Amino acid sequence: MTRKEQFMYEAVCVGLEGMRAGLGGPFGCVVVKDDKIIGKGCNSVLRDNDPTAHAEVVAIRDACRNLQSFQLEGCEVYATCEPCPMCMGALYWARPQKVYYASTRADAADIGFDDAFIYKEISLPVDARKIAMTCVRCDEAIRMFEEWRAMKHKNLY
Amino acid sequence: MTRKEQFMYEAVCVGLEGMRAGLGGPFGCVVVKDDKIIGKGCNSVLRDNDPTAHAEVVAIRDACRNLQSFQLEGCEVYATCEPCPMCMGALYWARPQKVYYASTRADAADIGFDDAFIYKEISLPVDARKIAMTCVRCDEAIRMFEEWRAMKHKNLY
Repeated sequence: MTRKEQFMYEAVCVGLEGMRAGLGGPFGCVVVKDDKIIGKGCNSVLRDNDPTAHAEVVAIRDACRNLQSFQLEGCEVYATCEPCPMCMGALYWARPQKVYYASTRADAADIGFDDAFIYKEISLPVDARKIAMTCVRCDEAIRMFEEWRAMKHKNLY
Repeated sequence: MTRKEQFMYEAVCVGLEGMRAGLGGPFGCVVVKDDKIIGKGCNSVLRDNDPTAHAEVVAIRDACRNLQSFQLEGCEVYATCEPCPMCMGALYWARPQKVYYASTRADAADIGFDDAFIYKEISLPVDARKIAMTCVRCDEAIRMFEEWRAMKHKNLY
């Protein structure tokens, strides 16, 4: 096994354990830094009643907690399946160096996980989406942005 | 104030409180069911060292915990800003009935939160993205999907 295959195998083991324990679907993820696993997660949607508890999100949160940082600088992420749009967004905010995945979104669709639908929706204009999204203008919301802009000594992220 | 403006104002209050306490950026969110707020959240990226702790994700998790369900059936979500791709994905998995937002992604970009970049990246083919994403084929990952398919009595989500 190559190094990458080894870490991907570890991600599969995390996913299998969670799936067999009924935590959620067949997905696992590990975060690696300096050749060590510093975070891991399996899909835990069912156990946690948390639709955001995808393997990647759980692993990112675990790794960030361990690093005490909201950035995964210099890290590699190994996900057993191509990330869905939510996880892709989470990865962009976490900014790891590289992402490796094994199964593809087509493989996932084949067992009933239809990320393709969300990929399509996310590219549509807001008013053409299946979940109705409506803008409600709110002066206080704009004022909150202005207060943020005017704040000194704020942490940027 | 209309009913919608009232709930949006509540979302702003949640966001303001978090921002002023240094938890994270200027974003708030409430989840409403049967005219009652059943979940809320502010951006808590800085306090929690969690890049996924956007207001919508925090509010979805809170509402789901309170409902003891991984679905927000019949719920409305009020977010003080147009959801980023991660939060959009999270909303699709949570499946609320409606989403309302106040400020737009253009307003957010104007104070330095560049969701547009992620929106663009997410529409690109995997190999054209800024964060390198590489497929590492793995037989065990495919076998995990087959084991899931063959499982009886599994919960679907």
